[in-house]
Amino acid sequence: MSIAERMIRTTYPEHLGDIDRRALAACIQACVDCVQACTACADACLSEDAVADLTKCVGTDLDCADVCDATARVLSRHTGYDANLTRAVLEACRVACASCADECERHAAMHEHCRVCAEACRGCEEACARLRDAL
Amino acid sequence: MSIAERMIRTTYPEHLGDIDRRALAACIQACVDCVQACTACADACLSEDAVADLTKCVGTDLDCADVCDATARVLSRHTGYDANLTRAVLEACRVACASCADECERHAAMHEHCRVCAEACRGCEEACARLRDAL
Amino acid sequence: MSIAERMIRTTYPEHLGDIDRRALAACIQACVDCVQACTACADACLSEDAVADLTKCVGTDLDCADVCDATARVLSRHTGYDANLTRAVLEACRVACASCADECERHAAMHEHCRVCAEACRGCEEACARLRDAL
Amino acid sequence: MSIAERMIRTTYPEHLGDIDRRALAACIQACVDCVQACTACADACLSEDAVADLTKCVGTDLDCADVCDATARVLSRHTGYDANLTRAVLEACRVACASCADECERHAAMHEHCRVCAEACRGCEEACARLRDAL
Repeated sequence: MSIAERMIRTTYPEHLGDIDRRALAACIQACVDCVQACTACADACLSEDAVADLTKCVGTDLDCADVCDATARVLSRHTGYDANLTRAVLEACRVACASCADECERHAAMHEHCRVCAEACRGCEEACARLRDAL
Repeated sequence: MSIAERMIRTTYPEHLGDIDRRALAACIQACVDCVQACTACADACLSEDAVADLTKCVGTDLDCADVCDATARVLSRHTGYDANLTRAVLEACRVACASCADECERHAAMHEHCRVCAEACRGCEEACARLRDAL
Repeated sequence: MSIAERMIRTTYPEHLGDIDRRALAACIQACVDCVQACTACADACLSEDAVADLTKCVGTDLDCADVCDATARVLSRHTGYDANLTRAVLEACRVACASCADECERHAAMHEHCRVCAEACRGCEEACARLRDAL
Repeated sequence: MSIAERMIRTTYPEHLGDIDRRALAACIQACVDCVQACTACADACLSEDAVADLTKCVGTDLDCADVCDATARVLSRHTGYDANLTRAVLEACRVACASCADECERHAAMHEHCRVCAEACRGCEEACARLRDAL
């Protein structure tokens, strides 16, 4: 059980049913994994000989990491919960992940770090869409 | 001249005209100020005797700080610029700032830190809306 | 295998041996878990009736989350690697985690979220010390 | 008057005298400026034809931005204030800024963004040292 699940289970926010609780924990975990993948992928791109072909990928990775980081934090808070904000943040995160997945997929055949990162971004894109639809 | 303006002037991203450049620098500065105001306001709320009445304000402050922080970073990058992402992030930031301004205004008469913070949030809400419309 | 481990395995930074690679991945994961635990614990404290007794805990949680977040990011980068910086960041993170664990342990019998958070903080404190000694 | 100064003036943490209050506000502002300069400099480096010569600079910029960001947040909190943590965080920030200033200065003659960024980093390095000595 991830820390996100343990903390949600511990605090039992009452406005959430069982299904939403699972979707919430999954989305937080997906965001956290995506921060990690994008930060490491940006750095790995910088170390490639072909860095000049990967600068867009670095920029997209960094944007995605920052948006996913903020999203994980907002989703971890229920005090002062605001459905409009949660929806807008999930939408921004979904777009950031889709954009980064698109870019990383272009380099996935050449660079294993882009392949793993694209996978993490797609997973987070879907988790954000699923949670948004469940709200 | 703020650091944001100096850095934008230094790098002259070519896809920006003069007006947009000013709107961009103003929005980054507004986000950065809002992070600072919200982080300090959350802490000041925690130190009040009436903290039990301010817990929603703390949560809203923290959400707003995190979203503004990510927004300032995304707006400071032009490599891999993606208008869809910028628009979605500006919208999330606008909602976070409006929500925090609403909550802080409720306590502005009692707590000076909420008054200053509400002002910073309103300024950032408007700067985000203005930049979004200029894109 | 965590995302941190997969990304480190993918990019094989050459200045790291097998043992250090494992210590590095474990420390990144511990930091990421700690961000998550501290962010959720701060929020859970805000929702307690006894919030007035938990304000120090909220502050310590937030400090710890921010320092662990920066540490995870710095540890995920090898381009421009600087042993002095890594050591100073690990030391700051170790202190932040120890301080937060101390505070959360004081409330662990009363609040399950503090118990889980204290555990995450102790784990991260030890991971930081271990990685620092391995460098 | 910066937002940092206004918020500190608003909340008057009692454990601070006048001189420390000014040093604290100056250090928060220096950190915030440094986040902004480093984030923009990393992006500007990515857009240079000579990006292959600037990858170390990008990595150092990103590390410095993340550490300064966490430092500004920790310094903005007084609830749960812990002198050991503040000192360790200031030391990590001082090292990150010195390291980034060193790297950016190497490119300052060629790249205006590195020149402005080096200046912001030196300013923050000094502000961290000054505040640490005042504690």
